[in-house]
Amino acid sequence: MVAAKGLEGVVVDTSNICFIDGNAGRLIYRGYDIHDLVANLSFEEVAYLVWNGSLPNQPQLDDLTKRLTQERLIPPYLKTAIRDLPTSSDILDVLRTAISTIGTGIPLTKPDMSTAIAITAKIPTINAAFDRIRRGQEPIDPHPSLGHAANYLYMLTGKEPDPIKAEALNKYFIALADHGMNSSTFAARVVASTWSDMYSAITAAVGALKGPLHGGAPAPVLKMLQDIEKPERAEEWIRGELKAGRRLMGFGHRVYRTTDPRAEILRDVASATADQQFFELARRVEETGNRVLRDYRPERRLYTNVEFYSAVVMHSVGLSADLFTSTFAASRSVGWTANVLEQVANNRLIRPEIEYTGPMNRKVEPINQR
Amino acid sequence: MVAAKGLEGVVVDTSNICFIDGNAGRLIYRGYDIHDLVANLSFEEVAYLVWNGSLPNQPQLDDLTKRLTQERLIPPYLKTAIRDLPTSSDILDVLRTAISTIGTGIPLTKPDMSTAIAITAKIPTINAAFDRIRRGQEPIDPHPSLGHAANYLYMLTGKEPDPIKAEALNKYFIALADHGMNSSTFAARVVASTWSDMYSAITAAVGALKGPLHGGAPAPVLKMLQDIEKPERAEEWIRGELKAGRRLMGFGHRVYRTTDPRAEILRDVASATADQQFFELARRVEETGNRVLRDYRPERRLYTNVEFYSAVVMHSVGLSADLFTSTFAASRSVGWTANVLEQVANNRLIRPEIEYTGPMNRKVEPINQR
Repeated sequence: MVAAKGLEGVVVDTSNICFIDGNAGRLIYRGYDIHDLVANLSFEEVAYLVWNGSLPNQPQLDDLTKRLTQERLIPPYLKTAIRDLPTSSDILDVLRTAISTIGTGIPLTKPDMSTAIAITAKIPTINAAFDRIRRGQEPIDPHPSLGHAANYLYMLTGKEPDPIKAEALNKYFIALADHGMNSSTFAARVVASTWSDMYSAITAAVGALKGPLHGGAPAPVLKMLQDIEKPERAEEWIRGELKAGRRLMGFGHRVYRTTDPRAEILRDVASATADQQFFELARRVEETGNRVLRDYRPERRLYTNVEFYSAVVMHSVGLSADLFTSTFAASRSVGWTANVLEQVANNRLIRPEIEYTGPMNRKVEPINQR
Repeated sequence: MVAAKGLEGVVVDTSNICFIDGNAGRLIYRGYDIHDLVANLSFEEVAYLVWNGSLPNQPQLDDLTKRLTQERLIPPYLKTAIRDLPTSSDILDVLRTAISTIGTGIPLTKPDMSTAIAITAKIPTINAAFDRIRRGQEPIDPHPSLGHAANYLYMLTGKEPDPIKAEALNKYFIALADHGMNSSTFAARVVASTWSDMYSAITAAVGALKGPLHGGAPAPVLKMLQDIEKPERAEEWIRGELKAGRRLMGFGHRVYRTTDPRAEILRDVASATADQQFFELARRVEETGNRVLRDYRPERRLYTNVEFYSAVVMHSVGLSADLFTSTFAASRSVGWTANVLEQVANNRLIRPEIEYTGPMNRKVEPINQR
């Protein structure tokens, strides 16, 4: 008997990394509430926590920061490989190919912390390099002293970013760093469970994140907000979409039956960063969407999800919509790699079964009798 | 509660593609027993069956053969990309990167049959091109009229292959074309369930196949046979391995509690193809391994698995051990793509849960108090 289509509610393993209480709207990394982490820490500190299980002291943080900074550089052959890809490429395809490329020429090794750090450090550099190349600009080398978030904005624009925008992106990176057995993390664990390598696992995760049902949702949210344009048009627009049988982007999540805590955090971040008019528009669309969805689908409890305010925050810090999902990858890479390390520390090959419902007892006939 | 570590025995969905009876040692594609398929058909006919659910008539087979032949060619930019990778690379890393590269520059499209055919057609070409490049030879263009198996041997060697060897590889390709929810196929379905594209899904599958617990086992089997060298040394060698607490390569399978039917088929193929002395060695190692494992682990029913005779057959048709797993990919690509098509035809996002067993209620302390 099928356990549950899409494995909804099926518990695949135990983990010490991330706890989600979908009914209470709580998200915990390694025992710390996400609100506490976002309010007080840098992305680097949270990465250390997710990878190691405890917060770093100063020497530990300095060491990690140094390693992340050194690993940001991408080798010349990779820059060439990125340059050789079509400029029309989806940046997720470029990121998937680039990570796979870095993984060639290396003997098969058990996934380790060094590789986790190296991949996480390089994703912003890959994103920024391709983004500039496709706009006809030269890639910019990483800044030697800016943090993960600020350096990303620096490599995209060539300017040291406004500290408010860098801090907004820092909070976004913390809030998105891990989220249980989402599809991309699960894909990474399935690959790692065969004793394959870290690059293979993260390549799989990037491919999964590309899907519109997973990481590909924030760009359509921005488009929706831009289509609605004015707060007073929200209700008519939303009712029109639902009448036409279309899904409302940025609402609903398989796990949360209340407001996604990351949406709350990113709403506050957006409030402090976004253009006031744009933020008011987003607030009205959120409030209207939540209310209208209660009318249309009272049996489901649909609220704004993480993608909704992710789009608002990323737009506000100056990222174009075609960078949204690959920016998500620059954060979630921490969760992917932490999960791969946990998988291989206590591994069992992930190899489920499927129920055959096709024909039986057929015999091969000669081709002229088919 | 964890359903089962490694999802062993957990049924993730229904499927009309492949039926495995692990107790009876039966393997069925689309209602046809694997013995019937291997005895009577070409790889192209079986690929048609696995993809479409019925055997092709002559015009359908001609059409598929034509499409596969056309799609074998790889574009010049891909040849350049392969040439730019380190010649020391694991060929699975090259194949993963090459498939990811082909997927760039293409707008996001729902996985379709054309992409399934294109990927399956190109895998042998990619394998052969890199294999020749790493040996300092020029890649050879695909042959316009040889079948999937014969053309693969042709592109590797530059010579039209002995028909007996081509037919042995044809049977190997049929026997390995699909096998239920193995880890690589499952990884492909997880990725496809996000509405990502076919290239992302197959890239993930290649990464999973690389793992020694999945596709990476045949090469160590060959090494074992070469180490044992003479039939009369089999028992001492095997007992030595088990005493040292090492796993015997090529024995045991999560699903089969009797002889893997593919091992039976490939044993017959090997008997018709392999050097007689080498085949006798393999037979003796099989018989000895099965017997000694009954003594050592009477509670498990361990028999030779598909990797054991895969190694013997691939070695006998002239493939070097560093081509074994990527040759497996040239067959399993059919099952991967068929499963992706089935997944997206009736999709639900694959997003399980995991049980949190870590600490709770921690509060962020200032860094100088950690």
